[in-house]
Amino acid sequence: MDQHITPLELRQLIRAGEFTTNTSGYARGFVQGNLCILPADYAGEFLQFCTFNPKPCPLIGMSSSPGDFTIPRLGLDLDLRSDVPSYRVFEHGELVGEVPDVSEFWRDDLVAFVLGCSFSFEEALIDDGLEVRNVTEGVNVPMYRTDIDCETAGRFSSKMVVSMRPMIPGDAIRAIQICSRFPAVHGAPVHFGDPKKIGIRDIKKPEFGDAVTIRADEVPVFWACGVTPQVAVEQARPPFCITHSPGCMLVTDLPNSHLAVL
Amino acid sequence: MDQHITPLELRQLIRAGEFTTNTSGYARGFVQGNLCILPADYAGEFLQFCTFNPKPCPLIGMSSSPGDFTIPRLGLDLDLRSDVPSYRVFEHGELVGEVPDVSEFWRDDLVAFVLGCSFSFEEALIDDGLEVRNVTEGVNVPMYRTDIDCETAGRFSSKMVVSMRPMIPGDAIRAIQICSRFPAVHGAPVHFGDPKKIGIRDIKKPEFGDAVTIRADEVPVFWACGVTPQVAVEQARPPFCITHSPGCMLVTDLPNSHLAVL
Repeated sequence: MDQHITPLELRQLIRAGEFTTNTSGYARGFVQGNLCILPADYAGEFLQFCTFNPKPCPLIGMSSSPGDFTIPRLGLDLDLRSDVPSYRVFEHGELVGEVPDVSEFWRDDLVAFVLGCSFSFEEALIDDGLEVRNVTEGVNVPMYRTDIDCETAGRFSSKMVVSMRPMIPGDAIRAIQICSRFPAVHGAPVHFGDPKKIGIRDIKKPEFGDAVTIRADEVPVFWACGVTPQVAVEQARPPFCITHSPGCMLVTDLPNSHLAVL
Repeated sequence: MDQHITPLELRQLIRAGEFTTNTSGYARGFVQGNLCILPADYAGEFLQFCTFNPKPCPLIGMSSSPGDFTIPRLGLDLDLRSDVPSYRVFEHGELVGEVPDVSEFWRDDLVAFVLGCSFSFEEALIDDGLEVRNVTEGVNVPMYRTDIDCETAGRFSSKMVVSMRPMIPGDAIRAIQICSRFPAVHGAPVHFGDPKKIGIRDIKKPEFGDAVTIRADEVPVFWACGVTPQVAVEQARPPFCITHSPGCMLVTDLPNSHLAVL
């Protein structure tokens, strides 16, 4: 399929059940988001958790009232019940299903949150001529649990999860400059160099995603990661929750460049 | 003496011969510059060298015609023959004198260049709450010759000289963001981590300035340094040249914040 498909065309295929896989690399140039849908009883505290921890939880959209399954700012036609290729449904923190449509699970008390995702800044890095190793090697970015505490909000708390991309120092400096322009998709890295300094025991064994090659002249560079709020939700164990399946993101009409603050 | 003296007051003291030392920390908030004065025959190529190598040689002022000893943009009253606390005079690359006034050496063919200096970005780092080790330890910043080639312009060529400030990675990331706003004072660092990668053999033995403490959890962070053009001038061996003495800078009326591009 043409990777230059528009976000609207891609959402229409997804809605029709004709696209059910990873969205990485499709509708290039447009923001893709992490989706988290919670009962209203948990929504206020989750919003507070995102507000307290903007680097791992950069909020780019939220439904306007409980039960609403639209976020017009991210796409006029957008229907949060059907426009993600694959959803995960949780009850009391346990995965109870992975489905291509959540219309039958929808409830009047659900509130949806869309968080920025690293696809946007990876595109900016690649457009600037930098290599993004997980893209080159065709795997998921390696992600690690750290010992960095997020700020707790009500029932939501978590250690920060980070993603890692190895770079030579000169490229890392450039990546810090580029990512600083994009606070809505995790912003500048939070650490580089020695993984032990942030509580990562074995860089070769990511807790999520896949390991990538780190060359002798490279340092690992770590970004706050959108898996962090997923961990917080797992720990909070709300009675009900819907998220996207890993890599199957919500594709929006928002150009990546619109997230740049400069 | 009050360190909050204005640039004009400080220049008046210097001009009167009543201030003859290091200008670091005086007239806080205002740009201090490196001074290099060359015969017109060399000025075109030196300007080209600065243009080709903006990180080590960020030009913030230049006299408008040979013989002119003013740069009104940097200070209406400014007199380049008397307003630096100490000058060095070179003939054919050899130091022939260190004097508080160069009026008697002035010639109709001299062209003056003022280059940005790290004092400006160190102030921005400190204002942001970062520690600048050479300031804390009250010594000159350590500087090293690297194996990074500057781009040659006529008779001017040099390896890049870098200054080094040790930081923990999180502070280094913040320093990269802050310094990126100040391209006119060397901008973002050029390297961090392993000194050997840029040809530095012994981090404990800087070629210029003083060694500083590097703690176990810190990495050395390297910035392009204004000593680079001095090395280029030494190698070009022009028949005549005047510079400021190390640390005795040209104090201008330009607020540091005016150098910020964002």
